[in-house]
Amino acid sequence: MQDPDINIPSVLAEVEAAFDEYERALVSNDVPVLDRLFRDADYTLRYGAGENLYGYRAIRDFRAGRPADNLARTITARSITTFGTGAAVANIEFRRAGVAAIGRQSQTWIRFAEGWRVVAAHVSLMKG
Amino acid sequence: MQDPDINIPSVLAEVEAAFDEYERALVSNDVPVLDRLFRDADYTLRYGAGENLYGYRAIRDFRAGRPADNLARTITARSITTFGTGAAVANIEFRRAGVAAIGRQSQTWIRFAEGWRVVAAHVSLMKG
Repeated sequence: MQDPDINIPSVLAEVEAAFDEYERALVSNDVPVLDRLFRDADYTLRYGAGENLYGYRAIRDFRAGRPADNLARTITARSITTFGTGAAVANIEFRRAGVAAIGRQSQTWIRFAEGWRVVAAHVSLMKG
Repeated sequence: MQDPDINIPSVLAEVEAAFDEYERALVSNDVPVLDRLFRDADYTLRYGAGENLYGYRAIRDFRAGRPADNLARTITARSITTFGTGAAVANIEFRRAGVAAIGRQSQTWIRFAEGWRVVAAHVSLMKG
């Protein structure tokens, strides 16, 4: 097997658009968009700052019950890399106003028939 | 584009073997194996419990300077999923003896000509 092509421009543009859509939905608490961009499957998982969620339903239920305040954040570092035409990773560091901790968000994106979807995510706070 | 096949048995077996090799190397501080299993590329990144490392060299240098004590851990949950023949995610929860916090480790594995390699990793501790 050969190496996958890294950052094919058209593929990278697709993933960046999907990532940006997710980020806009996150800070505006657009739950339907957040739900749509995670893969609806039992294997989908999300490790959050304070919870470990296994399966699409657990992630969706968590979002439905989450307070919608103080979601604004500033991305201070961003790295998106695509592998071939069907896989990508998106990683950011972020800060929230008045919070010293440095946030880190990691996502793995896979392309399905319906589009790019997050299959695994991990969010954590590191002492700033 | 069609959906990628999920968890093709032969592919899953390869990734599980690579994951297990990494875990054995981690708890025994086998730095050459840890280094080999991360992709040697500028885009490779690792968010650790206390540091954000961008690029293979930064990760390698961090490992070279890390204390080798208290690396033993028990995996308390494990989820590995493969997508097609070239991409996978491996996520675990782990505990260390005497530590209340719940560890979470997320890896994205991509298949290259030289084998499966981690291209992005995120490790964090959640209050237990």
